[in-house]
This record gives sequence, C-alpha cells and structure tokens, in this order.
Amino acid sequence: MSNLDESVRTVCHKARLASPALASAGDGQKNRILEAIARTLRTNKPAILEANQKDLEDAKASGYPTPMLDRLLLNEKRIDGICDSVLDLVRLQSPVGSGDRFVRPNGLVIMRTRVPLGVVGIIYEARPNVTVDTAALCLKTGNAIVLRGGKEALRSNRILVDLMRKALSEESFDPDLIGFVDATSRESALALMSCREDVDVLIPRGGKGLIRACAENAKIPLLETGAGNCHLYVDDSADLKKALAIAVNAKCQRPSVCNAIETLLVHKDVAKAFLPPFADMTESYSLELRGCPETCALLSKAVPASEEDWDTEYDAYILAVKVVSGIDEAIAHINRYSTHHSEAIVTENLAHARRFQQEIDSACVYVNASTRFTDGGEFGFGAEVGISVQKLHARGPMGLEALTTVKYLIEGDGQIRS
Amino acid sequence: MSNLDESVRTVCHKARLASPALASAGDGQKNRILEAIARTLRTNKPAILEANQKDLEDAKASGYPTPMLDRLLLNEKRIDGICDSVLDLVRLQSPVGSGDRFVRPNGLVIMRTRVPLGVVGIIYEARPNVTVDTAALCLKTGNAIVLRGGKEALRSNRILVDLMRKALSEESFDPDLIGFVDATSRESALALMSCREDVDVLIPRGGKGLIRACAENAKIPLLETGAGNCHLYVDDSADLKKALAIAVNAKCQRPSVCNAIETLLVHKDVAKAFLPPFADMTESYSLELRGCPETCALLSKAVPASEEDWDTEYDAYILAVKVVSGIDEAIAHINRYSTHHSEAIVTENLAHARRFQQEIDSACVYVNASTRFTDGGEFGFGAEVGISVQKLHARGPMGLEALTTVKYLIEGDGQIRS
Repeated sequence: MSNLDESVRTVCHKARLASPALASAGDGQKNRILEAIARTLRTNKPAILEANQKDLEDAKASGYPTPMLDRLLLNEKRIDGICDSVLDLVRLQSPVGSGDRFVRPNGLVIMRTRVPLGVVGIIYEARPNVTVDTAALCLKTGNAIVLRGGKEALRSNRILVDLMRKALSEESFDPDLIGFVDATSRESALALMSCREDVDVLIPRGGKGLIRACAENAKIPLLETGAGNCHLYVDDSADLKKALAIAVNAKCQRPSVCNAIETLLVHKDVAKAFLPPFADMTESYSLELRGCPETCALLSKAVPASEEDWDTEYDAYILAVKVVSGIDEAIAHINRYSTHHSEAIVTENLAHARRFQQEIDSACVYVNASTRFTDGGEFGFGAEVGISVQKLHARGPMGLEALTTVKYLIEGDGQIRS
Repeated sequence: MSNLDESVRTVCHKARLASPALASAGDGQKNRILEAIARTLRTNKPAILEANQKDLEDAKASGYPTPMLDRLLLNEKRIDGICDSVLDLVRLQSPVGSGDRFVRPNGLVIMRTRVPLGVVGIIYEARPNVTVDTAALCLKTGNAIVLRGGKEALRSNRILVDLMRKALSEESFDPDLIGFVDATSRESALALMSCREDVDVLIPRGGKGLIRACAENAKIPLLETGAGNCHLYVDDSADLKKALAIAVNAKCQRPSVCNAIETLLVHKDVAKAFLPPFADMTESYSLELRGCPETCALLSKAVPASEEDWDTEYDAYILAVKVVSGIDEAIAHINRYSTHHSEAIVTENLAHARRFQQEIDSACVYVNASTRFTDGGEFGFGAEVGISVQKLHARGPMGLEALTTVKYLIEGDGQIRS
C-alpha cells in the first residue's frame, strides 16, 4: 500500500472511530455544533479570504476560465451566505430516530428506525462552499464525513476544514468527525473510493467526468448526483404562450445549473409558430442555437447541430434544438440522450401528458412547468444534498433523509423460530 | 468488444427494449403472467427433471460436495414448491403506482410515485429455484430481468428460462423480458456487471466470494445481499433458560442459512453456568465448537479457535465461542467481525439492551430473540428479494418495494421559476 493510500485510510478510519459518539448524540447537540461552525467561520473571515485569494491567484495564473474562477471565489457576502445555510439546518427536523413499529403474531416488536449512514465520503471540484455545506448536512444527520476537494480550492478547503474541526473541539466532539484528504491527485480520489472498511457511502459532487470516474472506480456504494442533460418538448397541442415562457425560463434563468434544459424538442406542426418568437425572446441572452436542418431552415441565426450536441450538458447560453414528428420521436430522443434528471412537456392533450410522464425514464417529469423547479428547496424538503440521477436509495432532490438508512431493532421475550 | 461482451449486451438491451410495456401494464396482467409461468412449469416437469438430472450427473462426476448437490437438486415436490411461491406473489399488493402527493405554494402538484427499477440483473450460484423466484419477483414489480446463473445449473436454468419465456409469449408479452446469459465463465459475469446502459441494478445472490467480486467489479448500482456472520451475546444479566433456547435455535435450527449465528459470545461471569449445558444441548446436532482458551478450559469437546474463525460464516454445524469481559468487548468484537446482518443480545438489563441496539452497526439487532427471524416472511413483508447487508436503498429483509424506485410527476399550469 502506498503512503498516500495509507494516509487516506487513516483519515477514514479516524472518522469511523469518531462517528458513534455523534450518531448517539441528540439533535440539540448536533445543532450546537452547527452554530459553533457558523460562529467560527464568521469570526475568521480574514484568514479564509486570505487563503482563498492565494487559490484565486494560482488559478488565474494557470489560465482557468472566468466561470471557474467565479465558482472558486469567496467574499464576505458568500461566507455569510454559507454560514446562513448552516444555520438554516438548525431549524430543520432531523430524520434520525424516527420510524415505525409493528408487532408480529409471535409477540416480537419490530422497530424500523432511521439511523445515520455512518461515514460519508464526498469528492468534489472547485467550489469551496461545498466543503461547509456537505459537512453541515452530514453532521446534522449524525454522520462523520471525509472530504476530498479539487486542487484549485486546496488552501480554501484546508482552512474551512481547520475551522470546522476547531468548532467540533469547542463543543467537545472529536474533530476527526470531519476528515480531510489533504491531497488532490487522482490517486487520492481513487484511494478514497476504495475505503470499503471505513466509508459507507460516496457522494461525488461535480461534472459528468467526475461522476463517471466514481462509477467506474468506486468500490463503495455511490450516490450519483447532478449530471443534467434536461429536455423540454413542445407538443403540437401546446399553449404556445406558456411554452415560450417555460422554454425561456428553463434555459436562460440560470443556465449553469443542472436543472436547466440543454435540448428543446418542437413538434413539426408548431415549429414555425414557436421557434421564431423563441429566438427573438432569447436574443437578449445572446443564446446560441444549434439546430437540426429543419430548425436551421426556420432560424437564420441557428448553426447546425452535430450528433454530439444531443449528448452535451452545456451549462451555458447554448441550446440544441430539434424539430420532431411527434410525441413518439420526442420520448425516444429523450430516453436515448437524457441523463435521467428532469424533462418537461408543454401540452394541452391529456393523453400526451400521461404518456410522457409514464414513458420518460427520468427522476422528475413535468407537465406544463419549467424543469428549474427540480430542487430540494422548491420541492419543500428544506436542505438538499444534491439531485440523485440514479434509481437506488434516493431519486431526484435528496433531503436529509437521503443521508440516513434504517436499522431494525427487534425486541422479544425469548422467541425462537420453529 | 469480445463476442461474449457483445452477446451479453444484446441480451440486456433486448430486456431494456421490452421493459416499458411491462412497466405500464396493470397488476392484473402481471398476475396473469405469473399464473402462466406456474402452469407452464407444472405441465413441463418431466423436461425440467431431465435437464436437472444431467446437471446433477455432471456435478457428481466433478466431485461436488453433498450440500452443493442438494442445492442443485430439483424433484417434483421442489418444482411444486417453486410454482406455489410464484402464485403466492399473485396475492401480494404491488407497490407500483402507490405514492404520495403534495401541492406547493405556487400551485405545482408533485406526485411521488413508485415505479419499477427497469432492468434488474441477477448473478447467482447453484440453486435453480433462484431462476424462477427472482424472475417472478421482478415481473410482479414490473421489471425486466437478466439472469446469469452458475455453471452447475446451466441446463436446469436454460429450460426454466425457456418455459418462462414461453409463458410470457402466451400472455402476449415480449419473451425478452426474461433475458438469460447462456454462458457461465467469469467473463460473462463481468460483462453483465458492466452493462451500465441497459441494467439499472445488479443483485448478487450467493456466497461471500460472489458478493465481493460484484462489489469490486460492478460498474452498475448493486444491492448486496446475504453474507451473514451473525453473533449472539449472552450477557451477565441474561435469563440463562432463554439464552440456552435462543442459542440452540439460532445456531442449530437451520445452520445453512444467512441468519444463523456463527459466533457465540458469553460474559465471563456466566460462562461456567451457560457453556456446559449449551454443549450438552447441542450434542445431538454434533455441533463442533471452536473456542477461545477460556471456552476450551470449560468444555473438553471444544477445539481452539484461530483468528480466522471469528471471520468465518460456516453455514454448517460449527460454532465459534468466545468468553468476553463484558458488553464493551462484545460490541467491539461484533462491530469488528460482523457482516452487518443480524446480531442478538440476551439480557435482562435495560441499559445493556439499549446500548447493544444503539451501538451495533447491523441491519437487525435483537434483544432476547433468535436471529433466525431476519426474513421477509417473518417480518410480515410477504415475498423477499434477499437480506440487504448494505445501507443504501434497502437494509435488512427486502420486500417488493426494494425492487422499485420513485419518480416525481409534476403538474403545472405554466409555472416558471423566478
């Protein structure tokens, strides 16, 4: 075993050893930890900003693009926002300890009880707020956490973790409840993905490449989040006024997020009535349109789409557009190219609405609403761990419950099986 | 891509293409398929028995041990039992379509609905009944299935699958809903474990080696079942009469199954009162005892246990026995060696009962009852897909719901996000 493997294992093992004390702590104690974290981060803003500044300078010198620099940036307002999010968790009901209870004919009492997962591993990219957000979510649900962030944010992450560990100590908890892999090589990620003994679940937070790397290499159970190649289909029976508002909102309101659409499908019979006004309405966003031949014939500003475009999550002001022969082609296209996150149909035809919801194999399937609502807050779940695009454990927006599992506690009076 | 990879992918892809028609079928149609399967198997017993006989002859010639031959064996009674299990599913309520519904302040109606997983892959070993059991469970929950069984049962599995596919055709469903990997090499299993595009979930059914191989190699989400290194701890405050009955039941009533105990831990203060009568009571089972030095000093028939014994799931009339200093050592031993399946304490001390249930990190934790109750039927779930020893998705006995996921169906009237 390499030194790196060894050191990652040590971090995970220490988190494992620290975890039972938190798992058996009450919600009040966990909330006091969260309050201490918010307080400690707020009183140490200058040190956080200094570390972040160095990360930013290196990233600029390395020629990283502006959106990435923006994701990396911390300022006073953003640190306050991070602390506010931590305090928001204090007000949420923890699922730990809840459950149901049933009695069997032989008198056995079975209690199905929500318990923490144990140790959660997080692999993520440039955004340092993920360091605090995910640690707070894990602590609120009674889990220890091991963080492995991206190389661009190493100094920012290091100080954020140091401060959170300090807050844990202040509240008389073991600082090893927050483990930090202080290395950003590919090997350090692979080492974390292999810690079967001490990490219960791995959550990758980031782009498609990261998720795929985890799916290919992880030896521990995975909660796949995020990748969103989302679609909107405008049916021939659509109310075009609704369709225009939804299409503009779903693409342009915030294109960098996973629930924004990447491909627009339009029924051939309404393409001529829908596409030119849509192009006009998105002019102010400088939206780039990549279209099929029919789209390009209708819109002079559209450029030809390639096969790759149907498969791409732009997360930018770019949209692929395809004219389709009807709902069958729309459903087939979506089920072929989608990442199974969120899709929407605009239609006034009840049968089409039903078929779309039934046959589309995605976590969230909308009728006459924007895909941008796929979000824990918008769904009313309070906090969100991410959007699950897998089918096991949790699907769609994941609230606190997704960070817990169940345990059966069975009480008897000497029952044996006959 | 090899020919084998190609052919496994084709089987999976055909199952994927067949799956939507079943997913949208009503429970009545699915039940008619199950009835057709039971009927077809019953009327073709001679052909099944003939194929099984050839498998048995080969296995005998290869010198397989008797328990394995028993697992492989089919006879008229066993085929009837398999058919009865299929018909039992008809009477169960399907979770598909159930769910809850909530309305957001902006008028969006969100329906969280149970839907099939899609295509379920099963990798299993010598028991041909698994072929029919798992196919019936998957069909009942609206899933297509791809089966890859062990080499010993290849002919038996082949005919069982052929007959089930015939039943599907008779009910006007696509026979490709039941896919069969007609190859038993390690490569064929690896090929199935890599079919990310067309298999939603993989369920390994078998021993520790198989589960471990899937965890190491699978590129698709996994439901780990089965491995059960279960423990019973007899506390110093135990009612020894209850403890004796529970210990004998948990070990000897059916030692070959995953919820039987493999290690008995006994508090030092009751070891002398408990172990000799336990040894007497298990004499009739010829139970082999492998003990720590203290155990061997108390029981002349015990042989010394090695470190490996604490780690072993015997599934046979062998039991490891260790005298411990108290509940701390018992909990530490269990959390170190357990496969996180089922553990029990016998105690009259409330604080010890609570600590044991809180601190033991296993799916089912018993107070004063036999571990043998960890079972879908005994828990009142009706059918069982297996016992999950992982924490994601489902933990403990898995009923029909574990073969489904949720999908959010959202209905709006033009809502956009502000």
